[in-house]
Amino acid sequence: MRKVEVCLTPDLIHQVSLKGKIAVVVDIFRATSCMVAGLANGVKAIKPVSSVEQCRQLGEQGWITAGERGGIKIDDFDLGNSPFDYLDEKAADRQVAVSTTNGTLAIEKSLGAQQILIGAFLNLQATANFINEVPNDVVIHCAGWKGAVNVEDTLYAGALIQLLDAKPTGDSALLAHHFYLHHQDNLLAIAKESGHAHRLAGFGIQKDLDYCMAIDKFDLVVKLENDVLTKI
Amino acid sequence: MRKVEVCLTPDLIHQVSLKGKIAVVVDIFRATSCMVAGLANGVKAIKPVSSVEQCRQLGEQGWITAGERGGIKIDDFDLGNSPFDYLDEKAADRQVAVSTTNGTLAIEKSLGAQQILIGAFLNLQATANFINEVPNDVVIHCAGWKGAVNVEDTLYAGALIQLLDAKPTGDSALLAHHFYLHHQDNLLAIAKESGHAHRLAGFGIQKDLDYCMAIDKFDLVVKLENDVLTKI
Repeated sequence: MRKVEVCLTPDLIHQVSLKGKIAVVVDIFRATSCMVAGLANGVKAIKPVSSVEQCRQLGEQGWITAGERGGIKIDDFDLGNSPFDYLDEKAADRQVAVSTTNGTLAIEKSLGAQQILIGAFLNLQATANFINEVPNDVVIHCAGWKGAVNVEDTLYAGALIQLLDAKPTGDSALLAHHFYLHHQDNLLAIAKESGHAHRLAGFGIQKDLDYCMAIDKFDLVVKLENDVLTKI
Repeated sequence: MRKVEVCLTPDLIHQVSLKGKIAVVVDIFRATSCMVAGLANGVKAIKPVSSVEQCRQLGEQGWITAGERGGIKIDDFDLGNSPFDYLDEKAADRQVAVSTTNGTLAIEKSLGAQQILIGAFLNLQATANFINEVPNDVVIHCAGWKGAVNVEDTLYAGALIQLLDAKPTGDSALLAHHFYLHHQDNLLAIAKESGHAHRLAGFGIQKDLDYCMAIDKFDLVVKLENDVLTKI
């Protein structure tokens, strides 16, 4: 049976071989949840970039700009980093350039993989179904928080493992899988204990957390191709 | 309340500030279990070194030599890396120089801490009691396996958190604590699922695994001072 491994943070990706594998990048609060929500709701394409300046340059070329620093929308940008921003009609049928920190780093560090998918609880089953149709080994790449392991991405890794026809391989996969199994009846409760949930709750965005933890709201698969995210 | 953090592998120690803190280094299979067992059974002092050559040089100066590479005792060394080797009478009242890979690295990377303790299930409660008498913040530093997170050290981190008068701080501490809580009634079963347990089981040392997972066999605390481990 093919394997599924978990990389708990981009700071540990050097321990994983990506060649020939599918990398599933996840940043539940909130980058990859936004990406999935946006593409499910009519956004045409999303380009993740690491700097605010790159994002502004794309803005000048007609892209919608999105991003936050420290949880706050960047002043002159069109959208912040709330999934609800991506549901706004001004984003529909447009291309969005998004500046995120943890999410973009995890994507960049996944570039050695054969295919990069973007995962979120919002499209959990659809992503699993897609992967189950192909034979490749899988690496679930958690974006974490500034290089540290986080609860919500680890939970997602365990949830995806649970749905894959693949053998959990390595202790990080085992940890993530057990962590999910023990909390599957109340994912939101444990996710809200995470450090990042506490940071975000300070900005009064409780509804974002609830939204990002909603499972299978959308039936779509998101891939990276030529530096741009689109629906498959 | 003072804090307890967890560093899941030495590859993530850069994310933790050690200054003024107690670092508890743990490498359950088998380095720190050997150290605790040895010092509890009459070994006078243990010096962890990173290279086989350093170990040999100390051997020439009268130290007992101990160590393994890839789970196998080094040919010309006195002891291997089994806790039972450290119970041998030839080690009693002697100084032991030990070459380990993961354990030594975690100790070296803990040198910024105010105090370094060596933890194992074998002296879990004693270590907790000692820490509970002092006010310092705590970092539990898991040695892992070649930089990767492992199950058994993470379990120990959760078990120690459970006994400390300290607030688990950060998502790694939360993960470790929950992982322990969900498996506390059968630590051995989940520890045996770890990748390293599988590697070691191949060498026919099942009894080592059982021994390393025995809780509170010894009532002693082990500290590092001037590069040497001794009982407190």
